[in-house]
Amino acid sequence: MVLDQANSGAVVGDTLLDLAGDGPLVSRLERALRDAITSGRLDAGSPLPASRRLAQELGISRWVVTQVYEQLVAEGVLEARVGSGTRVAAGARLGPTGAAATDTLPPLPRVPAYDLRPGIPDLRHVPRDAWSRALRDALAAATADDLAAPAAAGHPAARAAVAAHLRRARMVEAPDTAVVLTRGATDGMDRVVRALRAAGHTHLLVEDPSWPVLREVAARAGVVPVPVAVDEGGVDVDALARAARATGARAALVTPAHQFPVGVPLAGERREALLAWAREVDGLVVEDDYDAEFRYDRRPVAALQRLDPSRVLLLGSTSKTMSPAFGIGWMVVPPAWRATLSAAPGTAPSVVDQLALARLLTSGGYDRHLRAARGRFRRRHDALLAALATRLPDARTSGLAAGLHLVLHLGQAAPDAADVVRAAARLDVGLTDMRRYQVEPAPTSRRLVLGYGNLVDARLDDAVTRLATCATSRRDG
Amino acid sequence: MVLDQANSGAVVGDTLLDLAGDGPLVSRLERALRDAITSGRLDAGSPLPASRRLAQELGISRWVVTQVYEQLVAEGVLEARVGSGTRVAAGARLGPTGAAATDTLPPLPRVPAYDLRPGIPDLRHVPRDAWSRALRDALAAATADDLAAPAAAGHPAARAAVAAHLRRARMVEAPDTAVVLTRGATDGMDRVVRALRAAGHTHLLVEDPSWPVLREVAARAGVVPVPVAVDEGGVDVDALARAARATGARAALVTPAHQFPVGVPLAGERREALLAWAREVDGLVVEDDYDAEFRYDRRPVAALQRLDPSRVLLLGSTSKTMSPAFGIGWMVVPPAWRATLSAAPGTAPSVVDQLALARLLTSGGYDRHLRAARGRFRRRHDALLAALATRLPDARTSGLAAGLHLVLHLGQAAPDAADVVRAAARLDVGLTDMRRYQVEPAPTSRRLVLGYGNLVDARLDDAVTRLATCATSRRDG
Repeated sequence: MVLDQANSGAVVGDTLLDLAGDGPLVSRLERALRDAITSGRLDAGSPLPASRRLAQELGISRWVVTQVYEQLVAEGVLEARVGSGTRVAAGARLGPTGAAATDTLPPLPRVPAYDLRPGIPDLRHVPRDAWSRALRDALAAATADDLAAPAAAGHPAARAAVAAHLRRARMVEAPDTAVVLTRGATDGMDRVVRALRAAGHTHLLVEDPSWPVLREVAARAGVVPVPVAVDEGGVDVDALARAARATGARAALVTPAHQFPVGVPLAGERREALLAWAREVDGLVVEDDYDAEFRYDRRPVAALQRLDPSRVLLLGSTSKTMSPAFGIGWMVVPPAWRATLSAAPGTAPSVVDQLALARLLTSGGYDRHLRAARGRFRRRHDALLAALATRLPDARTSGLAAGLHLVLHLGQAAPDAADVVRAAARLDVGLTDMRRYQVEPAPTSRRLVLGYGNLVDARLDDAVTRLATCATSRRDG
Repeated sequence: MVLDQANSGAVVGDTLLDLAGDGPLVSRLERALRDAITSGRLDAGSPLPASRRLAQELGISRWVVTQVYEQLVAEGVLEARVGSGTRVAAGARLGPTGAAATDTLPPLPRVPAYDLRPGIPDLRHVPRDAWSRALRDALAAATADDLAAPAAAGHPAARAAVAAHLRRARMVEAPDTAVVLTRGATDGMDRVVRALRAAGHTHLLVEDPSWPVLREVAARAGVVPVPVAVDEGGVDVDALARAARATGARAALVTPAHQFPVGVPLAGERREALLAWAREVDGLVVEDDYDAEFRYDRRPVAALQRLDPSRVLLLGSTSKTMSPAFGIGWMVVPPAWRATLSAAPGTAPSVVDQLALARLLTSGGYDRHLRAARGRFRRRHDALLAALATRLPDARTSGLAAGLHLVLHLGQAAPDAADVVRAAARLDVGLTDMRRYQVEPAPTSRRLVLGYGNLVDARLDDAVTRLATCATSRRDG
């Protein structure tokens, strides 16, 4: 051992312990020793100087050295044996030398300037202030009981507030005990398919086309999605019953208020037929009530859940009405599934978020936000239809005056939808091919699913002009 | 049809449609019609009066009646046929008559006045203001990209902030890409055991005794917990390797910094032996780093993860340091498991909460909170030991000067721990029998696991006096 530089470093074995840098001396010495061992400069078995001697050489307090030695002995990095001093432990390894530390995070996907993608809410009208105030007030008012340990099904105040909201807004028939708080519809679906799997379900009937994420969640949980065709009356319930018989499926995931992405409501007689099927097979219907708050020609159709609360499980969330970044939603659970779906530990969203949601619902703030949003979306929907009629006279649209999307059927002379999507991306226009929602994507497609939730009103005409350019240009081959 | 009372109700068939109550006329009429059908007072097939006539009888606008009829036709409750007017639909059912609506929510469990339960943080020192400000600032500063759609592994800013914090505070060796945000350790464990299950793991080695919730999460996911004994050196790694060979288990859940509930650190040589085992069987060690921020005699032992980042997955959370009500935590994932554990949709906690955590970590606010908490807990730990020595001289304590709990070994003359817990509950003292954490609860027990995280300092002496009363009283039989 040679004294190298008092107060800055010392050589141990043949390696420099460098104490340069910020932080307390204890941290600097510890880091220097770890680095020397990690890099192999100090091998297993290498003796370390006595604490008094190293302290002298470093010009630091012996206490600092003792602390570091004790720390590293406690971790098994060093060994201290009576009569033989302190050594680097046999087999001491301090991890890799940081090869993976250059890994960098991928950036967030960028929101296009002309955003015509479905499933995105109005990002310029996220109720930041209302949510911020609700969070603050919820935190300030929370009791010790509130903050102690989250209840798996959700906080009672949040369950009661959601139940009251759904009775009023969606005519849901449910006691407070039927409501379970979730982080959103995907989280809810995840819990439902796990419960289905645990109850012996192997298949789940899904609409084709439909939102792929929820199908994927089922598949991940080991429940095979079985596609059932959708027509202008919503999902074909006769075909559903046949597919159920063929596969043994006894559960179905549907969007009765506003089929996604076709945009139609489930026909009245099919509602009854679907529930009759569910009762016959002792099954479960999962109602994805994803955008029922937004209907522009009439009040929303009541939830299917209302027709048979013992057979329909409703999934709802605030991701379309407020923001997916808030991570809060709910499900309304039939009695037979309540014990299972209310019991899993660690599943509840932040209690603070739940209490903020309860405040927003009971104060009327949520309803005020919905009314304002409904007005904005209705005007945007109408303006979009008018712009499409002008710029794309060969195309037609379908779907209810509802929600945040419609279907655009391009003319026969138009390029394939995939080419339109690619060309539009180069113009910073976000578009979506209908094929993205089909279980078996069709060989050709002339349909786009246009979302207007996040379409900036001032750019609406420009967005449609750009879309029209891409949708009417000659195909490249 | 007989006119009953203009502006208040009308008789349809032989049932009164009562429009009394609050809200718009449309809602009141709709509710009245639904109630009549739900209750069976209006049967399937019953004809309804023409809209003009019903409007006259009710003294309301015909538009109101038309709206309601259209709504109920759209839902399949009513049928409208050309030439035959409007009828209650065949098979129309509006749900049960509300038998379940009397269900009431259970209240939250009450926090005892003398709270000596482990696993509970200091509920009087939850950093409400700091969290509230962090939430507000995060919401105000969030961009449209931030708010669009949550990344499954977490927001890049939160992942980077957690990685930097863990490198500094826990000497974790991990790039930002190794960090995945969770709602807490239970949520993290849930995702880990599902990934294990999907990779073919059938068993998970667990410490005995240990925190039961994480074992239950494994069992729920179909991974069988295999208990391994704990002694004063932490989990017995030789026994662990034997149990692994007997069951085929290749994954283990451990608490190396501070075994829960025994309170010892994992001995240095066992750390190496555990990792050697994991490498030999190509296995995974899950490190539950649940309270390592709190050590009162020295700085915390570095995370086991540091010794082999390719074999150790670290679980951490803010539930002990801040509050379980905040619902935010993290895991540090070895490269081989990153794709699986970063990909599940719908799993990320609220993006707003993630961004608030990132702010709290990078601003130094989290460290300030930890320093203040550490001082409080150290003083409380020392005061608790002193009070126990005075009031319960026949008992002894064990466990590191660390975390938020210790083990109290009652004297041989004391009643069984279960009797002490019951007697204490009557005095509003929350206690926990060691048996609660044993996989196979022992026939007799004289050990209590005492938590002091939420023990009110001003009640500490009184709490110990009450405990002593229960622990020294003669057994009843």
